Amino acid sequence: MKVLRLPTIKRLPTYLHILKRFEKDGNEYVSTTALINELDFKPILVRKDLVLLGLPGKPRLGYKLKDLISAIEVYLGWNKTDEAFLIGAGSLGQALMGHKPFEENGLRIIAGFDADPAKAGHTIHGKKIFPMDKLPELIKRMGVKVAIITVPWQEAQSVADILVEAGIWGIWNFSMVKLKTPPHVVCHNENLSSGLAVFSVRLRKMYQQTSNNL
Amino acid sequence: MKVLRLPTIKRLPTYLHILKRFEKDGNEYVSTTALINELDFKPILVRKDLVLLGLPGKPRLGYKLKDLISAIEVYLGWNKTDEAFLIGAGSLGQALMGHKPFEENGLRIIAGFDADPAKAGHTIHGKKIFPMDKLPELIKRMGVKVAIITVPWQEAQSVADILVEAGIWGIWNFSMVKLKTPPHVVCHNENLSSGLAVFSVRLRKMYQQTSNNL
Repeated sequence: MKVLRLPTIKRLPTYLHILKRFEKDGNEYVSTTALINELDFKPILVRKDLVLLGLPGKPRLGYKLKDLISAIEVYLGWNKTDEAFLIGAGSLGQALMGHKPFEENGLRIIAGFDADPAKAGHTIHGKKIFPMDKLPELIKRMGVKVAIITVPWQEAQSVADILVEAGIWGIWNFSMVKLKTPPHVVCHNENLSSGLAVFSVRLRKMYQQTSNNL
Repeated sequence: MKVLRLPTIKRLPTYLHILKRFEKDGNEYVSTTALINELDFKPILVRKDLVLLGLPGKPRLGYKLKDLISAIEVYLGWNKTDEAFLIGAGSLGQALMGHKPFEENGLRIIAGFDADPAKAGHTIHGKKIFPMDKLPELIKRMGVKVAIITVPWQEAQSVADILVEAGIWGIWNFSMVKLKTPPHVVCHNENLSSGLAVFSVRLRKMYQQTSNNL
């Protein structure tokens, strides 16, 4: 398989979701057109993305669903599951702990950690919350390699230091702070407000257009 | 101000967050270098983005913080606040209702709606949950123009139909289904697993590299 570009990678989960729906409905093949009809991406992009996955399509039938799903899952590493700890069980952290698609998509959050002693011992979405001082020991004992940071930005770097010291390899960082981590640690920054920014700009343009037409 | 490209728009909330932090710390000016030091974006991109905002910088001092913050907020429409309804008070919906940065960023969720009668009447993060049959009436009575959909994908289109019929102008759709809406409605699709996909690919490459070195 070729090396895919970032925008293609970002579209893969959407394809996967729809392809799995088609499979559940009892289909064996999927045509590019059928997939495009379910998407708001430009058809030319979808066609290119599918070609990049490198699978042979059958004339008139399209792609074999099972093979297409498997190709995407293998590329993303979602054919196996990583176990992750989540640090910061506030409202965002709790939501991620209960977000079922992550489990289907190769990431299983197995426990949460929080600085608030009142939260320790509780169970959120079936997962136990531990106090922060248990974090290094449990990372080592359970061999967990992936962590999700949903603490306030002021605390993010000190949490990252603990994670790296204890042997974490990958950090999914929701804290809005650039973390200093050694080169062997994959640190991926997420900003939930990026989507809101694009939505806001589109809304603002629509408002202006509408008031110009009045 | 020029028309900004999508990647630039997505970076604006991150700039804004850091600039506001600088302002709280009592700074009056910010240099491009100081901003770049707080970011994991390529310096050349940050420099280009700032130039596109069209503000004059002062030699050696940099940009006036207040002006830069205001330019970004005006571009995004975050200088005023839209009131929004949220439909689907599950774990993701509840988290969005409690996600403080949205309030600071021009979007105030004022109430939630859920098909589960057991949730109606409850208050989540200080916001009341109403039953679905109140939705059209409340949209009209309160003049709400923006809605967030966090219902399961099977229900998303019928919810969107109700919203459009009642007069909503903008839908932020977290449901993984392409919604059919008339052209005057801005429908923005969000996929939380896109970030996970990029993180997974980076992790997978790191694992491969590490095991090659063993």
